[in-house]
Amino acid sequence: MVHFNDCEDINYCQRLVSEALSLKEDPYKFELLGKRKTIGLLFFYSSLRTRVSTQIAAQNLGMNVITININQDSYKVETEDGVVMIEDKAEHIKEMCAVMNQYCNILAIRTFSTLESRQSDFSDKVLNTFIKYSTVPIINLESAIRHPLQGLADMVTIEEHKMISKPKVLLTWCPSPKRLPQATANSFAEWSNLLDYELIVAHPRGYELDKRFIGDAKVVYEQDEALQDVDFVYAKEWCSTERYGKITNFDTDWTLTNKKMSLTNSAKFMHCLPVRRNVAVRDEVLDSNYSIVDKQAANRIYAAQAVIKTILDKS
Amino acid sequence: MVHFNDCEDINYCQRLVSEALSLKEDPYKFELLGKRKTIGLLFFYSSLRTRVSTQIAAQNLGMNVITININQDSYKVETEDGVVMIEDKAEHIKEMCAVMNQYCNILAIRTFSTLESRQSDFSDKVLNTFIKYSTVPIINLESAIRHPLQGLADMVTIEEHKMISKPKVLLTWCPSPKRLPQATANSFAEWSNLLDYELIVAHPRGYELDKRFIGDAKVVYEQDEALQDVDFVYAKEWCSTERYGKITNFDTDWTLTNKKMSLTNSAKFMHCLPVRRNVAVRDEVLDSNYSIVDKQAANRIYAAQAVIKTILDKS
Amino acid sequence: MVHFNDCEDINYCQRLVSEALSLKEDPYKFELLGKRKTIGLLFFYSSLRTRVSTQIAAQNLGMNVITININQDSYKVETEDGVVMIEDKAEHIKEMCAVMNQYCNILAIRTFSTLESRQSDFSDKVLNTFIKYSTVPIINLESAIRHPLQGLADMVTIEEHKMISKPKVLLTWCPSPKRLPQATANSFAEWSNLLDYELIVAHPRGYELDKRFIGDAKVVYEQDEALQDVDFVYAKEWCSTERYGKITNFDTDWTLTNKKMSLTNSAKFMHCLPVRRNVAVRDEVLDSNYSIVDKQAANRIYAAQAVIKTILDKS
Repeated sequence: MVHFNDCEDINYCQRLVSEALSLKEDPYKFELLGKRKTIGLLFFYSSLRTRVSTQIAAQNLGMNVITININQDSYKVETEDGVVMIEDKAEHIKEMCAVMNQYCNILAIRTFSTLESRQSDFSDKVLNTFIKYSTVPIINLESAIRHPLQGLADMVTIEEHKMISKPKVLLTWCPSPKRLPQATANSFAEWSNLLDYELIVAHPRGYELDKRFIGDAKVVYEQDEALQDVDFVYAKEWCSTERYGKITNFDTDWTLTNKKMSLTNSAKFMHCLPVRRNVAVRDEVLDSNYSIVDKQAANRIYAAQAVIKTILDKS
Repeated sequence: MVHFNDCEDINYCQRLVSEALSLKEDPYKFELLGKRKTIGLLFFYSSLRTRVSTQIAAQNLGMNVITININQDSYKVETEDGVVMIEDKAEHIKEMCAVMNQYCNILAIRTFSTLESRQSDFSDKVLNTFIKYSTVPIINLESAIRHPLQGLADMVTIEEHKMISKPKVLLTWCPSPKRLPQATANSFAEWSNLLDYELIVAHPRGYELDKRFIGDAKVVYEQDEALQDVDFVYAKEWCSTERYGKITNFDTDWTLTNKKMSLTNSAKFMHCLPVRRNVAVRDEVLDSNYSIVDKQAANRIYAAQAVIKTILDKS
Repeated sequence: MVHFNDCEDINYCQRLVSEALSLKEDPYKFELLGKRKTIGLLFFYSSLRTRVSTQIAAQNLGMNVITININQDSYKVETEDGVVMIEDKAEHIKEMCAVMNQYCNILAIRTFSTLESRQSDFSDKVLNTFIKYSTVPIINLESAIRHPLQGLADMVTIEEHKMISKPKVLLTWCPSPKRLPQATANSFAEWSNLLDYELIVAHPRGYELDKRFIGDAKVVYEQDEALQDVDFVYAKEWCSTERYGKITNFDTDWTLTNKKMSLTNSAKFMHCLPVRRNVAVRDEVLDSNYSIVDKQAANRIYAAQAVIKTILDKS
């Protein structure tokens, strides 16, 4: 079965980028493809872009959309095997999965990071349990360690804006007052490698991303050095790796500014949003004409639509 | 007007079961029947299966669906007559009903049990107030004392799996750490009687269900005795009747196990879900091939669709 | 761009009333007009009538509807410019607006009153920021100071029920245990003036509405005097102006009763709902046959539909 989570097949990833660009030209070309089919969107965590863009993507393909906020609309969910369920969790993920399989042709799921245990987060338990038990395709709408629809949308955006075939792409950490997962950074790195960009990763010491995602990317501990001559600056907040899930650094020298952007090769500025203005990045950058954050958000529709279309084509 | 709540008309109930089985064969046969019509789903209490299955059922018939979580999306609702509304409840059920009647062709409502006063719960006030004031048909999506769409779905499931025309059906209490209403048990008993199954009800002393629902069913206070030779085991948690709404018994000897299931006539195992694994029933039963809990969940769609279709046909 | 907020163009307002009355006759006449278009409904505050009626209005015109409860489904939103966003608000209104502009063809937004600062509320910041930055039309679903879809629906209702071309219309304050904004009262007064009714406004001293909205309406501080010979009584709770946002008066002599209604010219009783029975108005009035509150609620559909249709026609 075709799930959408990790992306080991480079050809497949490149085809998805092409498909998304093609769907953007004509979003309604396949508007009967998903007729009489239902996609279930399950949110264990709040969302704006993911929720709306996936819904529009599915509707553009003629699907019915059912959205469930697990913690508000439904019951708390147990994810461990063999538990005697006497606590507050009233439903086991096995039943939730089996039931939603009866109701939906595709399930798209946003899970969460604990930010407590690196090992636990890296096992990506909730998502993988759905993948294990589901009899219908699963789409990862952001899990403990990956946000692949964001990764795909980012690649679509770079493809639209790049001036050379193999652009120099910087993924740089930026400060946040709130502990945030590494999922988006991981997926951006993973996809940049799949698309064969020249990837540089910059962050303070202790914030190293996993090799599994960054591969052979150059790692730089000085942001100004990393910014030299890059074509794209992708800023993202993430929590410490050394003291996993904590904030050990709030160094506002890592806040992106016009001065810093001037070190680049007239780079475009990217961020997945939401973003804390004047913390992660200054107003002057977000409001400049080299910011393409809204283009990224728009491309979330076509990324999701390419993935859903591919799944419908094969099922 | 055709509401869907209690089911005193046996012929009508049997026709609904047939209709549901027939719709399951061809869910889109009447996909234009509800065109330009809207069903409003009002939830005073959280829900997963009911919410999703009713939405799909209505969409299969071409209806628009509007879902309202009363306590999150809207205002708290006063249900008493003549009250001077100076407390936190900003809207009276009379206005909510009158307004939703302007907007929807059918209203489907999930109310709740207080689990405080048996008399109050058995008056089924919120549902009956909607039925009293509504100018459009009301569907009960679970009230203080009934869960008739679950009852209907359960009958559809038994009809699909039974080997003899009048199967022996056991409704057995099982333990829960959380106080739960008697509504699902009541409806299962009520519908089993309507369909003329041989019904046995098993529970500890003090957990008696109302005669109105169980009728002449055999009541047994020993689970092992009750399990002998039955064709279906329907497990359900419910609160004490003697000390209404309380948990007076948490006897895990009532937890369903493979050993207990071996006392039956190779019975199928049923539960409406959500279920607490290894409290109500052991993993070994839920994960066995004689568990049909996912089939029950799937049949919720066709039960709801049969009810909505019948209402649309008559209006 | 055609936003829908204040209504300075009298001809435009009268055309909307006519359009709404015409759509009520044949709601599905333009059911393909909004095909492949999406309206986003953003709620910063809870709602029942507004949510449901706007959704139905958009669906009657063939649009897709996406509803977001900002505080539940998404992130808290910063509305101030230039802020260093280190507090709990994770997204700036500029990004939310830019992103939703990518996803929706029309945005309809319910904001809120602070009820803390009259100056701040009267600047209608959140709504005006959306209007300032949006590249798609904005519909005001109630802001700090206006509720124009309610105003329009109220005018439609008066047009349906009036016996003379220029009816005498009373907007009267009534008591509430909860602090409530002036928005609905403002819009009722503003629209009554646009439609050239004879408007009288009654309230205790200290509860004066802004001249911007009531214009040259007669202001009366005695409710019984104000009720004489009027054709419509529009009751509404609102907070003090003198001590802005507070409740300085809970005088139940202002509660509407049958005796008070008998002072009128057989007036119809109107209220936007939700209403606290026996606080704002007695049961005897709400349950009488001269109450037309449910008609007002029904007309919310056609008011919204007229506005959306006008926007679609021009875009």
